[in-house]
Amino acid sequence: MSRLSSVTVAAFIAVLSLPVGAQTMADILAASKPSDWRPLDPQRTLYMELDSGRVVIELAPQFAPRHVANILALVRERYFDGLAFMRAQDNYVVQWGDADGKREIHTAKKTLKAEFARSAQGLAFVRLPDADTFAPQAGFSDGFAAARDSSTGTAWLTHCYGAVGAGRDADADSGGGTELYVVIGHSPRHLDRNVTLVGRVVKGMELLSTLRRGTGALGFYEKPEERTPIRSIRVAADVAENERSQLEVMRTDTPTFAALVESRRNRSDDWFKYKAGHVDVCNVPVAVRARPATSGNP
Amino acid sequence: MSRLSSVTVAAFIAVLSLPVGAQTMADILAASKPSDWRPLDPQRTLYMELDSGRVVIELAPQFAPRHVANILALVRERYFDGLAFMRAQDNYVVQWGDADGKREIHTAKKTLKAEFARSAQGLAFVRLPDADTFAPQAGFSDGFAAARDSSTGTAWLTHCYGAVGAGRDADADSGGGTELYVVIGHSPRHLDRNVTLVGRVVKGMELLSTLRRGTGALGFYEKPEERTPIRSIRVAADVAENERSQLEVMRTDTPTFAALVESRRNRSDDWFKYKAGHVDVCNVPVAVRARPATSGNP
Repeated sequence: MSRLSSVTVAAFIAVLSLPVGAQTMADILAASKPSDWRPLDPQRTLYMELDSGRVVIELAPQFAPRHVANILALVRERYFDGLAFMRAQDNYVVQWGDADGKREIHTAKKTLKAEFARSAQGLAFVRLPDADTFAPQAGFSDGFAAARDSSTGTAWLTHCYGAVGAGRDADADSGGGTELYVVIGHSPRHLDRNVTLVGRVVKGMELLSTLRRGTGALGFYEKPEERTPIRSIRVAADVAENERSQLEVMRTDTPTFAALVESRRNRSDDWFKYKAGHVDVCNVPVAVRARPATSGNP
Repeated sequence: MSRLSSVTVAAFIAVLSLPVGAQTMADILAASKPSDWRPLDPQRTLYMELDSGRVVIELAPQFAPRHVANILALVRERYFDGLAFMRAQDNYVVQWGDADGKREIHTAKKTLKAEFARSAQGLAFVRLPDADTFAPQAGFSDGFAAARDSSTGTAWLTHCYGAVGAGRDADADSGGGTELYVVIGHSPRHLDRNVTLVGRVVKGMELLSTLRRGTGALGFYEKPEERTPIRSIRVAADVAENERSQLEVMRTDTPTFAALVESRRNRSDDWFKYKAGHVDVCNVPVAVRARPATSGNP
């Protein structure tokens, strides 16, 4: 086979590929204003450094204040440095933590009271126009996929692709953030309100989703040498400015985001012969982009 | 860190891991009868041989008879041998085909009339008790996740994890099976009735879901050397008996499967503090197992 030139690749994409409605969403993104975006807050952003690159996690203290504070404390006492991913279960989660259970904790806590849901009062929540089968309402809160129940007055983060959660034992209050997992498959929404979700991966998912799957029960690696080491996890605020990932996340409370959602509900692309007229909360990408040099935010 | 012994791993899984309700489903599987399973039909099973191992695909001629017949013809004229995966888009699809567009087709066809949906008449369909937001009814048909609409009298396969589809151009009838993709992320149900689905991966998904993601538009690889070569694709019936993968798939029209679905709707495991009381058609695993030596089927 001859090599494929980049021109050929472009033609190939146009002619033969499976469109994803990207054109339309791309138009919306291209037409967006600086005010449609927000920079990541370095005080609640984590950088996980792997041999393969950096994974950026945005924490959600508005949903899990205790867990987020504890994870920040764990990170700052370098609890995670040198630990490893010891689980990768296909179509489910990758998970990291202290496989030996021997690492000491100094100022942080080992376990915390669960934060499965919070009061919906005072919480920003932009509801999707479509029904959700796992919750009375689904939508977005400050860039996070979330759900809400008016009858109980509660809200919670949803287990979508890239969601980060705190593993726990059988007791609801046995988690605390020492062991964390990331969703790498179809959304396991049955975990909603059963685990404290603490944030989501905003960059570097492909470094986690391609981890070799464990062959032991639940996707645990059978041999320690199969694990993927974590060089370090740092709070972005503690990293020199010139070494930070300059990212912006699309705001989810704007007309631009509403247009993006609509572009996913009904793909305007001619390729689509059948319009779903519907979108699942886990099928809406909350866009992330490199912060434009001109965007300032001094 | 000291090495983790297998005993420690087992304890670790029991104490610290995120349960998946596997215990309960495991009980159901353990108690299943031989009649709850069916062997794969070698005439509609494909073996894709990669350097990393074998991927087994079950084709669904009941949903896409023309495409399946054409794919079998392509396989038998060795159309796919030596081609490669040229696309891996995170949380979406991996895709293979003739990147150069130069491979000749002899007896098979390049394009076919679309088979996005079929008549629901005469089709086995076990409906899920739960609502689906993309279709009036969702359920299973002969081991495949599917949907149905009584008002139109049609049924179709759903884009769940592992679903295999025929890529196409903007014209509905421009696909044919020369280029195929597999879902590796959250179910892109908006593609339902927009692409002809031809089957699903029943073994070896982890070989596809971990393919390095492409960095070009839509996840296409930017350099040909990044592609993953396909050694060959064969129809199981054309492979020597002793080289076949002896697999069985759980039947989806039995009380045992209904019990499995129920175990996913409401996890009986004490770990679950909140029972979803619901399952998504793409969250129900249609179990696959090695064919027991005793199961006979002479």
